[in-house]
Amino acid sequence: MRETLKKPPKLAADTLRVIPLGGHGDIGRNMSCFEINSQLLFIDCGVLFPSDDQPGVDLILPGLHLIEDRLDQVQALVLTHGHEDHIGAVPYLLRRRPDLPVYGSRLTLALVQAKLREHRVGQTNLHEVAEGDRVQAGEFNLEFFAVNHSIPDALAVALRTKAGSVLHTGDFKMDQLPLDHRLTDLRGFARLGEEGLDLFMPDSTNADTPGFTTGEREIEPAMERVFAQADKKLIVACFASHVHRVQQVMDAAARHRRKVVYVGRSMLRNMTVARELGFLRVPENTLIELKQIENYRDDEVVIISTGSQGEPLSALSRISNHEHPVITAGPGDVVLLASSLIPGNENSVYRVINALIRNGVNVVHKGNALVHVSGHASAGELLYCYNLLTPKNVLPVHGEARHLIANAKLAISTGVPPERTFAVEDGAVIDLAKGVARQVGQLECGYIFVDGLTEGEIGDAELTDRKILGEEGFITVIAVVNLHSAELVSGPDIHARGFAEDDSVFDEIRPELAAALRRSLADGADDTYVLQQLLRRLIGRWVNNNFRRRPMILPIVVAS
Amino acid sequence: MRETLKKPPKLAADTLRVIPLGGHGDIGRNMSCFEINSQLLFIDCGVLFPSDDQPGVDLILPGLHLIEDRLDQVQALVLTHGHEDHIGAVPYLLRRRPDLPVYGSRLTLALVQAKLREHRVGQTNLHEVAEGDRVQAGEFNLEFFAVNHSIPDALAVALRTKAGSVLHTGDFKMDQLPLDHRLTDLRGFARLGEEGLDLFMPDSTNADTPGFTTGEREIEPAMERVFAQADKKLIVACFASHVHRVQQVMDAAARHRRKVVYVGRSMLRNMTVARELGFLRVPENTLIELKQIENYRDDEVVIISTGSQGEPLSALSRISNHEHPVITAGPGDVVLLASSLIPGNENSVYRVINALIRNGVNVVHKGNALVHVSGHASAGELLYCYNLLTPKNVLPVHGEARHLIANAKLAISTGVPPERTFAVEDGAVIDLAKGVARQVGQLECGYIFVDGLTEGEIGDAELTDRKILGEEGFITVIAVVNLHSAELVSGPDIHARGFAEDDSVFDEIRPELAAALRRSLADGADDTYVLQQLLRRLIGRWVNNNFRRRPMILPIVVAS
Repeated sequence: MRETLKKPPKLAADTLRVIPLGGHGDIGRNMSCFEINSQLLFIDCGVLFPSDDQPGVDLILPGLHLIEDRLDQVQALVLTHGHEDHIGAVPYLLRRRPDLPVYGSRLTLALVQAKLREHRVGQTNLHEVAEGDRVQAGEFNLEFFAVNHSIPDALAVALRTKAGSVLHTGDFKMDQLPLDHRLTDLRGFARLGEEGLDLFMPDSTNADTPGFTTGEREIEPAMERVFAQADKKLIVACFASHVHRVQQVMDAAARHRRKVVYVGRSMLRNMTVARELGFLRVPENTLIELKQIENYRDDEVVIISTGSQGEPLSALSRISNHEHPVITAGPGDVVLLASSLIPGNENSVYRVINALIRNGVNVVHKGNALVHVSGHASAGELLYCYNLLTPKNVLPVHGEARHLIANAKLAISTGVPPERTFAVEDGAVIDLAKGVARQVGQLECGYIFVDGLTEGEIGDAELTDRKILGEEGFITVIAVVNLHSAELVSGPDIHARGFAEDDSVFDEIRPELAAALRRSLADGADDTYVLQQLLRRLIGRWVNNNFRRRPMILPIVVAS
Repeated sequence: MRETLKKPPKLAADTLRVIPLGGHGDIGRNMSCFEINSQLLFIDCGVLFPSDDQPGVDLILPGLHLIEDRLDQVQALVLTHGHEDHIGAVPYLLRRRPDLPVYGSRLTLALVQAKLREHRVGQTNLHEVAEGDRVQAGEFNLEFFAVNHSIPDALAVALRTKAGSVLHTGDFKMDQLPLDHRLTDLRGFARLGEEGLDLFMPDSTNADTPGFTTGEREIEPAMERVFAQADKKLIVACFASHVHRVQQVMDAAARHRRKVVYVGRSMLRNMTVARELGFLRVPENTLIELKQIENYRDDEVVIISTGSQGEPLSALSRISNHEHPVITAGPGDVVLLASSLIPGNENSVYRVINALIRNGVNVVHKGNALVHVSGHASAGELLYCYNLLTPKNVLPVHGEARHLIANAKLAISTGVPPERTFAVEDGAVIDLAKGVARQVGQLECGYIFVDGLTEGEIGDAELTDRKILGEEGFITVIAVVNLHSAELVSGPDIHARGFAEDDSVFDEIRPELAAALRRSLADGADDTYVLQQLLRRLIGRWVNNNFRRRPMILPIVVAS
């Protein structure tokens, strides 16, 4: 699937061009760019969270640089749902073009607004849409479809253009007994299939998982058992956006006469929004504030907390370390992790679980009970979609290579020709005309790292430096010389960090370095750069021979 | 389970003291220390592989420092089996006392010898033992029992002393149809139970996994299917010590008329040892050397490779990146990962899987087929052991807190009194006398980090420095001053690494720093330390305000 870089041709009239700007090759930073007759449209604008390979990075943005000089041509940004990997980069886009029209469902826009406030992005142009709505945005005719997912009010969107029709699912699954009774609109999909669909862009996250995603209701027995057996404190941790999961906890709490307390800033904010908009039903006299908790016995409350992924600063992590200002958890208390375990987070999650178990807490999690189900369609559900839609071309979205390719294989198994499936990575350029899609180019769509207040300042070179620094530490050698008198005025002083407990390890090499500098000066060296290289070479070789290590070495020779 | 530090009392005569020196609180660096009447004995001496929290560290040793000054009293080191987490630290121990008598099975000692050669540890005192053997080592009477595990020739060991009897299982499971027909010796365990067992020390790795560990033979259908369907190249990756898994691949290869090639240094070394000792049966004309591979068609060979955990320098990783000098893998080829996915390795493993799938390779792994089973007893098997042995006291070994505590709960469920189970962490001091074990102390049993050629030179302070360096980078500010004339002679020069692409970001702050230094000198500052603190404060504040980051700052003021 890896194409070498190839500049795409000029876009012909009435041809639709699709360029994935993120989410093809990673789980995260989802963004798709569409273009026809010099008009652009985006679907989603999310962030990717960095991996261990990207130390110190806060966030990774989609490939905004590829369209930065054409933002005035964008007709709309369409948001499928309110998860960070779909809306997290909206402030960074709107800062570049504040009046960009943004379309999304009620809950999605509410979460975007909260985010924009935090980023101090002011006056914006938000348009609420709902399933069934049709909207014209320049040359793009949009139709919205209900889909179900692990956050309420998610939408799929169909684009109709002069070049043909497209269905982008956003993130979705096909729970047939959803808690809010809002089904993925398969009747709508069937109608699109009848009309003839030119390009299908389906969620790939679970495409390599065989069978069907378990329904949300299936976790009720396990949750009920936890509530029935708990006779002391009960803490439930889940994603701060998972309104349905919180609803289940809320309902169980009401049945078992426990009050509910939110712990964690994002949980409180999101659930307040969800309740105000009617997505979360809170039974009367159920919710209490954190400060009221001291008025209740342990078995009279349930705490709904952030931190299900073991995030070190989250409420749950602080509870496990006895660092939370209000909540403690000890012998006989129960912690329920009603969440997935995202690959890469295992060490953090097990660190929290071990700490809780050490404190005598009983921990229930997906490893020992059915307390979480995925929010994404598995292979079985995707096959239904392919057969309902019979798309002419398929461009899987949202996934690493293994997910995208698995999804393309599903398409092929239902009769889509292999050459009409495009398991491509970010920056691929796909043109659609007369019912046929073709890859016509491949652009470089690298990461934009957000690090503190900077955006795009950190690149691969800095990350490589950080990796060396983080694994090996560094050594600075400083000497002051007088180039006129050819004298070593001061030093060399050697400072190290992350290398050895004691700088006295350098006592052995310091006189050698001084002697080498003096020799070189006596030989007529008149350039501090040459002396620096000399120091780097000598100390590098000594460290390697004596310690078998390769710290970063920064030699500095100052001419006084 | 966390006891605060408490110095143990002097050991009474004819009392047995047990101190875990590793493997209680981590999966790895397993080592148990026993003492009676001033004689010591060790079981196992393994290494722990570092986590992301311990950047740059190569290995972590057990708490050898706790017994360093008493090594002359040690009667024996007993090794249960040849895995790194049980034998990896033997060279570090034998370097301290080369003539220490070491007892282990045939395969275990062969693997230890290969390791000692690599570490250039010479003349040693190795004693081969087998199941059924009894050995007297000072006051300790040893009896060895066969157990099955994911490496052949594993042993459990019973210690009989004046204070009572102990059974230490090593790592084990209870496969009832093992490939080599060598059953875990439950008859022996039953006999110990009849005699009366004072202290049981069982493997906890899978104690929190309900039910029974699936038998090795159960993976045969999946493996057979892979062989039957593969019509091009076939690469199987597994642990380099998993002789039984390699045997299964070898047998399937012979059935399907494929030649076998080992790839990866440790695979070649271990399988050569295993074959020489008769643990691996290689059908005639099956094994070929890597350099012969070009004489065969793709569908005539199977490559058995290291790298099942995604290790970046391993054979499989290099194959996936087109960096292997001989082996390639492309469209239609199959890679079978016949291995577990150790928590924490997910990102590395999926990186390799994605790269292979991108190249068109079909990847079969435990996520999509039954191609691996664990080497450790699950809860169901452990219950059998408790009921056969009816131990008076239980000290679970090998696991994180969650595993040790789960194992203790199993013991309690079979009738062991809660106060006679010890889910304790490394450094706990347990004394056994007259059938009763008690925790009498808790020693500090910190990590000894091996980093390059150094051992114990790196501590928590250096790792904290490395973490800051790795996430934030560093900034060095250097100035040369003349304290007599109160002049700034040169600088400040600012150098950064891992911070920004371009040092010109500092152009703004440099004049401010210079002015501040001049002011301070004019005000009479006569100490470079004071000037350094001034630089640190000013640049730290500036970086935080402008970049919201906290790099390490190293200010250096040289008086010329």
